[in-house]
Parts: sequence; structure tokens; C-alpha cells
Amino acid sequence: MQFHLNGFRAGDPELLPPAAGREAGEGPKTLPEQADVLIVGCGPTGLALACQLSGFPDIETCIVERKDGPLELGQADGIACRSMEMFNAFGFAERVLKEAYWVNELTFWKPKDDNTREIVRSSSVRDTEEGLSEFPHVILNQARVHEFFLDTMRKSPTRLTPHYSWQIASVDIDQEAAKDEEAYPVTVTLERPDGHGEPETRQVRARYVVGCDGARSKVRQEIGLSLKGDSINQAWGVMDVLALTDFPDMRKKSVINSSEGSIVLIPREGGYLVRIYVEMGKLKENERISARKIVLEDIIGAAQRIFSPYALNVKEVAWWSIYEIGQRLCPHFDNIGDGQTGLPRVFIAGDACHTHSPKAGQGMNVSMQDAFNLGWKLAAVLRGQCAPELLHSYSTERQSIAHELISFDRKWATLLSMPVKSENDPDGEGVEASEIEKYFVQHGHYTAGTATVYSPSAITGEPEHQPLAKGFRIGARFHSAPVIRLADARPVQLGHTVEADGRWRLFVFAGMNDSGEPGSPVAALCDFLTSSPTSPIVRYTPKDADVDSVIDVRAIFQRHFRELDPMDMPGLLLPQKGKYGLRDYQKVFVTDQSGGRDIYEMRGIDREKGCVAIIRPDQHVAHILPVDAHDALSAFFDGFMINKSGQKATKKAMDLAK
Amino acid sequence: MQFHLNGFRAGDPELLPPAAGREAGEGPKTLPEQADVLIVGCGPTGLALACQLSGFPDIETCIVERKDGPLELGQADGIACRSMEMFNAFGFAERVLKEAYWVNELTFWKPKDDNTREIVRSSSVRDTEEGLSEFPHVILNQARVHEFFLDTMRKSPTRLTPHYSWQIASVDIDQEAAKDEEAYPVTVTLERPDGHGEPETRQVRARYVVGCDGARSKVRQEIGLSLKGDSINQAWGVMDVLALTDFPDMRKKSVINSSEGSIVLIPREGGYLVRIYVEMGKLKENERISARKIVLEDIIGAAQRIFSPYALNVKEVAWWSIYEIGQRLCPHFDNIGDGQTGLPRVFIAGDACHTHSPKAGQGMNVSMQDAFNLGWKLAAVLRGQCAPELLHSYSTERQSIAHELISFDRKWATLLSMPVKSENDPDGEGVEASEIEKYFVQHGHYTAGTATVYSPSAITGEPEHQPLAKGFRIGARFHSAPVIRLADARPVQLGHTVEADGRWRLFVFAGMNDSGEPGSPVAALCDFLTSSPTSPIVRYTPKDADVDSVIDVRAIFQRHFRELDPMDMPGLLLPQKGKYGLRDYQKVFVTDQSGGRDIYEMRGIDREKGCVAIIRPDQHVAHILPVDAHDALSAFFDGFMINKSGQKATKKAMDLAK
Repeated sequence: MQFHLNGFRAGDPELLPPAAGREAGEGPKTLPEQADVLIVGCGPTGLALACQLSGFPDIETCIVERKDGPLELGQADGIACRSMEMFNAFGFAERVLKEAYWVNELTFWKPKDDNTREIVRSSSVRDTEEGLSEFPHVILNQARVHEFFLDTMRKSPTRLTPHYSWQIASVDIDQEAAKDEEAYPVTVTLERPDGHGEPETRQVRARYVVGCDGARSKVRQEIGLSLKGDSINQAWGVMDVLALTDFPDMRKKSVINSSEGSIVLIPREGGYLVRIYVEMGKLKENERISARKIVLEDIIGAAQRIFSPYALNVKEVAWWSIYEIGQRLCPHFDNIGDGQTGLPRVFIAGDACHTHSPKAGQGMNVSMQDAFNLGWKLAAVLRGQCAPELLHSYSTERQSIAHELISFDRKWATLLSMPVKSENDPDGEGVEASEIEKYFVQHGHYTAGTATVYSPSAITGEPEHQPLAKGFRIGARFHSAPVIRLADARPVQLGHTVEADGRWRLFVFAGMNDSGEPGSPVAALCDFLTSSPTSPIVRYTPKDADVDSVIDVRAIFQRHFRELDPMDMPGLLLPQKGKYGLRDYQKVFVTDQSGGRDIYEMRGIDREKGCVAIIRPDQHVAHILPVDAHDALSAFFDGFMINKSGQKATKKAMDLAK
Repeated sequence: MQFHLNGFRAGDPELLPPAAGREAGEGPKTLPEQADVLIVGCGPTGLALACQLSGFPDIETCIVERKDGPLELGQADGIACRSMEMFNAFGFAERVLKEAYWVNELTFWKPKDDNTREIVRSSSVRDTEEGLSEFPHVILNQARVHEFFLDTMRKSPTRLTPHYSWQIASVDIDQEAAKDEEAYPVTVTLERPDGHGEPETRQVRARYVVGCDGARSKVRQEIGLSLKGDSINQAWGVMDVLALTDFPDMRKKSVINSSEGSIVLIPREGGYLVRIYVEMGKLKENERISARKIVLEDIIGAAQRIFSPYALNVKEVAWWSIYEIGQRLCPHFDNIGDGQTGLPRVFIAGDACHTHSPKAGQGMNVSMQDAFNLGWKLAAVLRGQCAPELLHSYSTERQSIAHELISFDRKWATLLSMPVKSENDPDGEGVEASEIEKYFVQHGHYTAGTATVYSPSAITGEPEHQPLAKGFRIGARFHSAPVIRLADARPVQLGHTVEADGRWRLFVFAGMNDSGEPGSPVAALCDFLTSSPTSPIVRYTPKDADVDSVIDVRAIFQRHFRELDPMDMPGLLLPQKGKYGLRDYQKVFVTDQSGGRDIYEMRGIDREKGCVAIIRPDQHVAHILPVDAHDALSAFFDGFMINKSGQKATKKAMDLAK
């Protein structure tokens, strides 16, 4: 954490200085008449987006929610490694780590060979592959995650808080006005939900609207889209319970395939609570689950049969539900359909775009990444850093991720709902227990959220120089590794410098003999970035802003920290900032050898030549370039950024793989 | 963290269920007429004590402070590793880790040989020895530490908050009433400080009073004690500044000995702020520092001369002060003087007991450990677990620590105030630069706070069985190490199970071939503890309380977690607790081999035989015993605990090395 740059301030450093008009505390209590971005829905998707936007004092964000207050009891609970990395960028990962259950081990259970009415453990595996992320896979009540987002928003410069008890009546886009970048072409009519007294409606005009309003999204309906897909006609029950059992893996994530059906058991935070997903049988063609009239006792009964020979004595049920499995996807995530032209003004994200079964723990995670992808793009356009064509890339990039999600989930849900083949009858119907295990282990990267790779576009480079850093796959998220900060010799994770602040990062990995001395490749790059008229920093940094406010440059050297002097570094790596021109000492790092392997080895960085890694504001690797590829670096940023005189990037470059 | 034991509760798990009468939130707004413990002063000492006591719903604690509200700008800032371990027991270490500056490296500077008016770096050393603690040495504004204590108190069952704007007028002990354990023999008269309108006084009757009211303690004065000691007649200035400099170690802790005087430079949290202690010259015999009329410009000027040839351009001064070095100590820390009889009713702690120079960063740390030592003892006596004779041990144990502090500080402060010997004139006056470095490095354990060792007494055993676990020195703090929790395969620090909850811990380290199976030494110990009439758990656990509420037993096995089944463990290691009788799965651990050395190797535990480590509520090792030493284990607890029928321990055993 860095603070006190513009003078000492007593108190909580996470309570940021307020934006103009927010000195008195929270944001406006009444709905505004207009907003730059109107977010509909306070689930994890809406809150992730609102949290991202709340950090920009120059953006007016408004978030509305139909319910009367924050969620108290959440449905989602699985938090993938990749989401933890994002939480860290938002500044609250340590709170989640403290409260959550950590998923370390996964066990598989199958029917006993000699008594198929009883289950036996078939195998135990590590849940998350070693080194996949610096964060574990954890489980925590969604309501707590909401609270952390809300808390971060409350402490942001805009002191953003949601407007509760408002639902969407209509969303209208003035197509003529939409052509004017500065206009507020979307008119959203809001009304009080039933049971809130006299009818009351309000209108908010917005430059952009984002529907994070769930599977039954009203925003999606208003822009004429719907979810397409099917159901596999399988009913499941789910319950959060406090229970007494002699099942030995009660505190490990367990997948149980018995002759009586399947269970996915997920231990919860606090040491006692567990979530149990229970297969409740096949539905007939066109049968709705509601017709089954399944009650809690049915779920408990089914769970007890599946657990046999182990007892399950349920003492308290904190929450339960039933659902049928289906995979549905919306063909577009914004209001611009195939073959249509124009710039998107209304977006949907999260469950409004894709719904699927909950058992692989993907729902909340993929949805928050939708928001993380969209948030910085909206901010960059609204702040005049990028042309609005950038916004097309949201639907393009996240559509392909949603497709992968749907196909992963269809296979996983089908496997879990199939009978397990008896070992005595290898030709019989069903799936082999080992096949389920294999599928899960093979998809470990996928369920951890680290397998997402965006395709080449104006904001994601071609893999021409990928061999310079094989472990930083272009399009994938930047995989952090330990380094030592030069100025104070502190061991840190390099990836943790990428905060959710809308900035781009250049990590300059120095070649073997480069110590940043005058004339070295790193120094030459810094000189170029500092003073060339074609430098993206010179071109795209506003006149009175700190030098790192748009593109944040940091360097890593292959030296021991006692061998380098911070004062010998190029000025760009020891920049003077803020009202006093104080030096920022946190831009330079050296390799950390303490784990045996340093970042060059862990991430396959070319020791001889080094490289430059360009990192997007959502932590994805945008490009890998040689340290001396100054022109290519400029050309990359020129492809989507707008220079200070307001000149747009060329339309060609902005086509963004649409 | 463990929660939901007695049913699911939505919201922040750190907001504990309120004690009776505290359901509405904060504690009483007006001063109570009586209290079990009245704490005077809201510095780190008072707050550490209040925070400890706030966790007991059955203890009425009252804390008063002369100032009008919480501190905003603190003087103290150094947080030793040992204090971080204690903060972790209070549940807020992660917040300190996030905000603080981490002291990783220490550099020493001396005059240049060929130009003694300029300084040159003489050496760099690691600040904290590898493996000394699982926590780093950090720097954070005292005001933030206060806030974390206050926040923990607010969330405690008693919702404890301080009463501000009250100062002590008098403290009177009714010596007759003091003989009655149940009485409230101490009458404290409080008054509003000047400037608070009409004079107003109030009386609070208390069973115990603790003066944490600083170097000029009124409580100390009221019990007729005073600080004894002397001054070394040396004036120092201190300032927290935002400054621009070309000094290369501005973000490392640095000790500078120049021909113009000394500086201790301590980087602060946030990346920009630094604290600079500056030597301001010798005072004459009996000269008071106030006579010097030193102003801020003098301190800055002296610093600039010492820093030469480096520039120091001060942009903002957040806080500054001047002080003279002295070491003073109070001969008793309670109201029972040498040769006097009776039980102590009034205590002093922290700066009220000992004052010294601030530069070794010991003040706040030693003071908080005073409170941590006293807190559990007061709680144990007030809750009827231990005889009040236990309270004698506070002054005994902490006096010897304070003596060590004073003598360490006298040497350190003297070294820093001496001129540095010129290398060209080895016979000249002064100290060699290398001597200063050597002294600091030699005392690394001491300044980290991990060198505190309590002498044998009723609560600290004789070292007869110390060879069974050489790394858990009896009397020293329990040195944590990594282990794996059996039930969920999670890597954890064993020491982090020792929370600040007043409970004793028994860590049972199993011998090589012991898996806890029936008949094994671990199982035999568990059987003894569960059912023998001489077992301390049977004897001292209240009838309706959970089995681990007084003595918390945990075991560590030399196995891989996949080799053991939690359900095969002795019942004591899988206890059923709370209103539902749910199983607590967090009592059993196995060794963690991932770092190459497991806890047996790291702490010198006898692999063949194992051992039992008895840990005090303040995390100090009380005793090391063989696993089969059932009688010795009983005898140890019988020495100071009171059994359920109220029978006191023998007077002899309670004599506590007084």
C-alpha cells in the first residue's frame, strides 16, 4: 500500500480522499437524474463492476438493486484462485483468506465392489495444482464477498453506495443521440417493487447501462435478447447444514458417486458448516422441477441414502434450495447484434449472459471476471483514454469464455448425473468412477479460473515474441511470482502491483548483463518512454498527471538487492510524484532466489535478452515484446488509445477482432 | 477462525455474539459504579489489557482515558516480531501486515576515512534473523494499532469502549476489604480534566485497578511508587517527514554515525514517510532539555549536517518532538512492597513502570507484553480458575524483563550518543562503528521481543525435560512452526491456534510410531485427560462447559495426512461441542515436510519419544513433559488452579517464586 504522497493523513489509509462533493461521506441518497454508468443489480457481478468504477472520481456511477438491502445469505460460495487474485487487486484478499475455508484436498467416493449400497473412497487428490496461483481456492458465503466490495466502495473517493428497492421498468436507447459520444442516450425507468407503498417511478439518463440483474435479467429483455440452451432434465437439491457424521472426509471437498445417486460435498467457512449438493433424480421430458414438490426432508433423506454406510445427522439447515440443471447462453452481451453497426450502450454481464449448474463453483467467478473485463474499458472510454470502439471487445472476449463455460459444465454435470458403472459389469451402463476424477483433474486450470485466454485483437498482441517469456502467455492473466523490492529489500509478489485502478503496466525484465546503467537496454527504453514524442507515456499521459498515472513502468533485474543502488536507476524508475515531487521507490525489483527458482526460471523468461510484458488493467497479458522494440511498443498503444489532443486511433486498429 | 458452532449466523464472524445486556451494541456510555477491573489509560498497554479482558462476558471491565478521544498521531511505531505474534492472537495481525512498513534490512553508516565530514555505508545486514518468527518486524503508527485494538474490543462479546475525558483524582484501597476476594476494595475518584466545563467527579469501586497511564502515572503516584533511574544528559530530536533526498538507503532502516552526530532513520508505512531520530548534543549536568529551546529548524539543520554529502529536502513534517535520554524503572509493579503481605489490588504497566529511549523500538512492545502477562492472570482469578496469589507473578515476571530492557537500552543509547572513532586514530576517543553493528546484531533476538524468558515458578516448570523439545524453551514464548491440519489438509502455523482467550494449551507431539491408535501413548494420555479424577481437564473444567474451554488439547503426528483418518482419533482430539454437539475437526495436525524441515526438526523435538508442551495463555511455554508423565501433568496444574468445588491450590505451590 502506498499513501501519504500528497501529505500525511491520520486514520485508515484505505479510506481514500473524497472526490469533490463527497467530503461529507456517502454518495447521494436519492437517485441521480443522470449517470455515466448505471449498473442494475447488486450481485457479485454488479458489485465487482461498481467497485472498479468507484475508484474514479471523474466517473458518476449509479448502482440500483431491487431488493431492500444487502444480501444476508448467499447461494454462491466457491472462490477460484483467479477471483482471489482479482480480490487482491481490489485490496481485500486478506479478509477473504482469513474467513474462508481453503480447499486443499479433493476426494472421490464410489460404490463398494462387494456391496454397491455402500460407498468407499476411490482416491484423494490435491485440489489445486502446486504453483497455479499464489492464492488458494477458497469457499466463502457470497454475502461476505458482497460486504467486502461494498466496504471498498464506501471507502473509495466516490463513496459509492447502492440505491436499494428500485427495479427496472424499461430501458430505452435514443439511437440518434447514441452517435454522440458525449450524450446520455439511454433512459432507464425505475419503479418501486411491489409492497413499497404508493407506486413511484423515476428516470435516470445514462451514457452506459450494464445489466447485472441475473438469469431473469430485465435489462437483457429490454434490449431484445434471451438465453438459449437446454436442460439435462436432472433435479438437484442443495443445503447448507450443521451436521454430525462419521464420514471421514467431512472437512474435505468430496465427490460421491453411489448407487443411490451423487453428492458433491463442500466444507464451508468456520469449521462446522458444510454445503451438500444432492442428486434428486431425473425429470421427465418437459417436467418442471416444481411439479416434484421436493421438500427439505427429501433432500436430507436422499443424502442419507447416498452417504451409507455413514450416518448423517442434520442438526440445523442454514439454507436450502432445489434446482434443475441447464446450460443457457445469450448470443450477445451488448445491444449491438450480428451485422448491426453502432457503438454499444447497454451491456449484460454475469448470470444475465450465462447460466449453468453450480457444482463446479464457476458461476460467481466467471461473472465477476465479466465485470472485471468491462469495468476498465468503460472507465478508459469515459475518461477519454480510449475510443469507444474498445467497448466491442467486451462481448467478443467474454462470449468465447462463456462458450467454454457452458461446454465444460454440460460435460461435468452430465458425468455427475450418470450412474456409476459397476466394476463387476464393465459393459454395463454408466460412467466409470475414474473418468469423473480424470475429467476434474484435467480441468483444474479451468476451474481455478486461470485458463482464460483472450484472442489477439487491438488490446491483445500476436504471439510473435512469446518465446521471450513462455510463462506469461499472451491473453492469459499475468501469473505472479515472488521478487524482492530493491529500495527496501522486501519480498513481494510482482503481480500484486497490478491493482484494479485502470492503469496499464509495463514490466521490464532486464537481460543478464543489464543493471539499468546509462546506455543499457533498460535505460534506453526508459529514455525512449520518458522523452520520445512517439512514446505512449508522452502521448497518452495527461499534462498535469503523475508520469505513471496511465502506464506504470516497473523493472526487474537479475541482481542481488545489495548490488544495486536505487539512486543509479533511470529517472522513470524512481519517478517524482504528487504535490511535493516525492520519489516513488517501489518501481524496481530484483530476483528472489530464496525458493530455489527465481521469476525468470518460474515464468520461462529469456535470461539473456529479458523482455517487456505489457499488462492490461484487468491483469491479462496484453503483449510480450523485446526490450528494444520501442516502435512496436508505441504501435501497440497507438492501436487503441487516444492522444492528449483528442485524436482517435485509426478505425482499422480499433476493429478489435469484431 | 471457527464460527457457526451454535448455529449459523449471517454477517461478520468477527462480530461475536453479545453478552447479556450488550445486545444493543456498545457498552455503557456512562461510568459504571463498580467494575471488576478499572484500566487507566488508552495507550497500547491499556488497550492490550482491555482487549484481552473484553473477550470474557463474565468480567466487567472499564477503561478510562484523560484525552477526549482516540489518539490520531502516535509517537511509537516499531512493532517487534513478538508483538505481531500477539496481534495475531488478538486476531488483527493481517491488518498490520497490510499497512505497515516491513523492516527487512538494516544499514550502518560512518564517517569517510578521507573526509570525515561525509558519511559512507559501512555495512548492510538483515534486520531479523531468518526463522526467528513467522512474522516480520514492522513499523506502523501507534494510532493505527490503537484502532485495531478498539475495533476488536467493539466486536467482542462485551462491546467494550473507553470512557474518554476522565482523569484520576485519587486511588484508595480499603485494606480490610482487600482481604475479601469478592470485595471491591479499590475506590477510584475520577474528575473531568481542565477545560471540560463545570467540575465533575465520579467514583468507581473496583476489584482491581491497573495504571497504564504513562511515565507520569497518577496511579503509580497514588500507590506511593516512583521511577528510579538517571539520564545520560543527551538531547535528541525526532521527526516524521516527507522529504526528497539522494541518500540511497532512504527506504531501509539506517544507523548513521557521522562526525556531526548520529541519526537513526526509520522508514514508515505508505512508501514515502520516514522517521528521523537526530542527536542534538550533550546536556550539561542538571540541564533540562527545555532550556535548550530546540525548534524544528534545529532538528532539520542537524539532520542535514549529519546526512552530508547527501541532501535532505524536507517537504512536510507530520510530527516532531525533542527528548532527553534516560532509563528509569519502578521497583514494584503492584501495590505490595518488599516485605509486605497481602494480595495485590492495584497494578501499573507499561511506561508507568519503565521509561527509556525510543530508538531501539522497545517501548510499545515491552509495554504491551506487560499487559499480555497480566491480562490472563486477572481473568483467571476473576473467573475463579486460579487463586489470587497468581497475581504476585505479574510484578515478579515483568520486573526482570524491565531490568533487562533498561540495561540493554542504556548501552544502546550510550553507543549511539558517542563519537565514532576515526580509523586513522585508533587510540582516539569514541566507539568503533563496528562495535555498534555488533551490539545491534547480537541483540537481534532481544529487540525482536523473542528473548523474554520467565523463570521457574508455579506457572513455569523446571527444565528437567527440556531435552525432549530443545526449541521450545521453557519460559520463552512458544515458537510457532508450520504443520498440516489433518481433517482438511490445510497448511497452518501451529502457534496460531493459541488465541488470546485465556485458555491453556497442551500440544501433544506424538512419538515416531504413535498414530493415536488405542493403547498408544497419545491415546493413553487422552484417556487419562478425559476420565481420570486427577486429570486437570476433569478437575478444572466447569460442568457445562466445552471440554476444551479451560485446557485445549491438540496433537501432532509424524505422518502424511492421507495416512490418518480423523475418525480413528481419540475422542478428546475430535471433541463434540456446543449446543448441537458438533465435532471440532481442528485439534489434530501432521508434520509439514514441504519446507524440507518439519516441526520436529525445526524445534528439536525428540522424534522417538515425542513430548507434551504446556503453553500459557500468554503464549509462553509453561512446561515440557514426556507424553506418559500423567501425574506430573496433573501436579503442574494443581499448583495454581482451583478445582470446581472451589478448593484452592496449596499455599506452598502458590508462592510463585515471590
